[in-house]
Amino acid sequence: MTHPALPAAPGDVPEAHERLFTIEATPVKFGPGAALDAGWELQRLGARHVFVVVDPAVLALGVAGPALASLDAAGLQVTLFSDVETEPSIAAVERAVQAARAAGADSFAAIGGGSAIDTAKVANLLCTHGGQIMDYVNPPVGAGRRPPSPLRPFLAVPTTAGSGSEATTVAILDLPERHIKTGISHRLLRPSQALVDPELSRSAPPAVIAAAGLDVVCHAAESFLSRPYTSRPRPATPDERPPYQGSNPVADLWSAQALRYGGQFLRRAVQGDTEARGFMMLSATMAGVGFGSAGVHIPHACAYPIAGLRHTYRDPDYPGEKRFVPHGFSVIVTSAAAFRFTFDAAPERHVQAASFLTGRTYAPDDREALPQALLDLMRDVGAPSGVAALGYGEADIPALTDGALQQQRLLAVAPRSPSRDDLGRIFRESLHNW
Amino acid sequence: MTHPALPAAPGDVPEAHERLFTIEATPVKFGPGAALDAGWELQRLGARHVFVVVDPAVLALGVAGPALASLDAAGLQVTLFSDVETEPSIAAVERAVQAARAAGADSFAAIGGGSAIDTAKVANLLCTHGGQIMDYVNPPVGAGRRPPSPLRPFLAVPTTAGSGSEATTVAILDLPERHIKTGISHRLLRPSQALVDPELSRSAPPAVIAAAGLDVVCHAAESFLSRPYTSRPRPATPDERPPYQGSNPVADLWSAQALRYGGQFLRRAVQGDTEARGFMMLSATMAGVGFGSAGVHIPHACAYPIAGLRHTYRDPDYPGEKRFVPHGFSVIVTSAAAFRFTFDAAPERHVQAASFLTGRTYAPDDREALPQALLDLMRDVGAPSGVAALGYGEADIPALTDGALQQQRLLAVAPRSPSRDDLGRIFRESLHNW
Repeated sequence: MTHPALPAAPGDVPEAHERLFTIEATPVKFGPGAALDAGWELQRLGARHVFVVVDPAVLALGVAGPALASLDAAGLQVTLFSDVETEPSIAAVERAVQAARAAGADSFAAIGGGSAIDTAKVANLLCTHGGQIMDYVNPPVGAGRRPPSPLRPFLAVPTTAGSGSEATTVAILDLPERHIKTGISHRLLRPSQALVDPELSRSAPPAVIAAAGLDVVCHAAESFLSRPYTSRPRPATPDERPPYQGSNPVADLWSAQALRYGGQFLRRAVQGDTEARGFMMLSATMAGVGFGSAGVHIPHACAYPIAGLRHTYRDPDYPGEKRFVPHGFSVIVTSAAAFRFTFDAAPERHVQAASFLTGRTYAPDDREALPQALLDLMRDVGAPSGVAALGYGEADIPALTDGALQQQRLLAVAPRSPSRDDLGRIFRESLHNW
Repeated sequence: MTHPALPAAPGDVPEAHERLFTIEATPVKFGPGAALDAGWELQRLGARHVFVVVDPAVLALGVAGPALASLDAAGLQVTLFSDVETEPSIAAVERAVQAARAAGADSFAAIGGGSAIDTAKVANLLCTHGGQIMDYVNPPVGAGRRPPSPLRPFLAVPTTAGSGSEATTVAILDLPERHIKTGISHRLLRPSQALVDPELSRSAPPAVIAAAGLDVVCHAAESFLSRPYTSRPRPATPDERPPYQGSNPVADLWSAQALRYGGQFLRRAVQGDTEARGFMMLSATMAGVGFGSAGVHIPHACAYPIAGLRHTYRDPDYPGEKRFVPHGFSVIVTSAAAFRFTFDAAPERHVQAASFLTGRTYAPDDREALPQALLDLMRDVGAPSGVAALGYGEADIPALTDGALQQQRLLAVAPRSPSRDDLGRIFRESLHNW
């Protein structure tokens, strides 16, 4: 990795620019059997009565069994909540909030993918600090209220190698009546502890591993390519420093390694290789720490309307009947076009990202290196070929573009700011990636 | 970096072996002016009355000024304690404990190097949980009592690029009457937040930068070369997992980057280059996170008797009159011989560590690659040439060896276990490195 200049004195960046970055990582315990420590960890965190949010498919398959048994063995009172929606709507999260309020638990746990973890994050926030979900949702959609003090202890046990939500400060919500997805983000939403247990992803179907893994790769690529933190405006107070700060030397470490693991292990993980699934679990958490500091931008901004505008897509290889675009597919489909657009902002970083993914060396001006590396990986793991395969056509591009433009919190860390026309071109180029 | 096999299923390692690793990192805010956020951070952590441990030289030079001013500006009550010893004895730390108990502060801060931060760690421990220092000191020297619950909020503001104590779970103490150094280690000793401000190391003398930077390089090399976590015995309960777990894929990231920065920036940092000093500040924290998880072993075990056996050495380029071996010099002098001894346990990792330091490629069986890279760096930054230059001779080797053998907590993570004879040979070979 090249070493960008590091400001070491105030004069090293213009007065109006940011000079600081922060890095925080959820404490992680990793390895087969880690989920068996759930009871011990919650006890250590002072829990007596735990509100446990479990993905219903995870519960039905018995994947949550070991963690739940360890809560019992530790003598903890458990209120189980499994009415979790995949890519949850605000109404679904509201049901969890009501249930958690009724339970009066002193602590939270989530066992599942990003949907379960995000649902528990919001339930914890609302139970600790009161108010309505929209009070806390990122502006301009919601009021952007900040939690005034730490939330209750929260243990996250991811079962997919995807969202990295166990390591981030963000909870994502779908607002179907407004045709958008948005979120709540604050450092205090980050779980107190994560147990990352590769055994839990062992039974996931290949399409779930593929979509989740492409989300990991996209997190890592976007955060590695986010604008340098020193190019952001300097916040007036520490409180106004956004969770997504732009790329920095510590986030780079996490993002680079997640890209290496994604390139080396995602194909084998989809094929069912246990060790490769373990590395993807680790990669998901690493990418979560990386983008939790640096941020994601254009592909994720485009993914929100792709997932939120129309609920007609049903992935043929996905379990369940719900019509939705798996998050990883919604982000990866525009990544090649997005990184063609951002290439000129930092050619060497784009080529580096491609090298991390493939282990190959490229010419420093190879603008197709990263798009091709991503497209190769997508094809190899059976991703949809583009935005068209997800149910959209040329006529939808204005509405998709409008949706992406609403995600200013994300677009603010893009290395090159896309205009409405730029976003339209990115969607158009992504209709058919091959 | 090569990717060691990652256990993803219980059968991937023998039943009696460890399968899990944990990683925790102090939240860090990095950049010029970060120290100005001291007041804001402590307020955020709920502080009203802060016991501030400041290195007396740091205080006299005005380096603590900005952080202290920010505490005042935030309206915090401050009790200042600057009676800090370099490489503090247990008696010196006891004075801090008494002062902190008398002050009755609700929170702690440290501004200084490892000595100040470690003093504050112990004061926080004793004020929160009572008892005597020796109750908590690592066995067999002390009783190894574990703190039962989190300590008070603690903000660490390092002023040297060295100990990484802002990121670790360890406090080191000198027991001069017993001629040993030992420590207290528990995850709850880790500071709540670190502010790493490269401006604070700007006025440090070159010898201080050299010694501290060689400590960083040694932390990173030792943790990168510590035995794999999966070779450790499996603990009976999570509580018995030691803070030093052995090398693992996450600690490796931190250690590798700290080695790269050390190789690229330490020489320039000693010469006074501001940007290089900034990178060394970051490197020190990164190495702290790395060895805080993986551990240090032979050079650090040898350093304890080198520093503790005789207090006669006075570094000609160090400020002050106190006779002591700067910690970084005490660790680095045996590193070349130690890594010659450990080479056969993991040749490829030793060669990789050398490559991180120098940016060069080596033959996979080049056992001199790492020792030579370290010796070149030592010579270039003006380190003492060996154990003899620090005041010891052939006749002292039995006593030095006895002292190193007492550090079983460290030797337990060495990639190859040294016998008494092996340690004797390492000391002998290190009398004159050139």
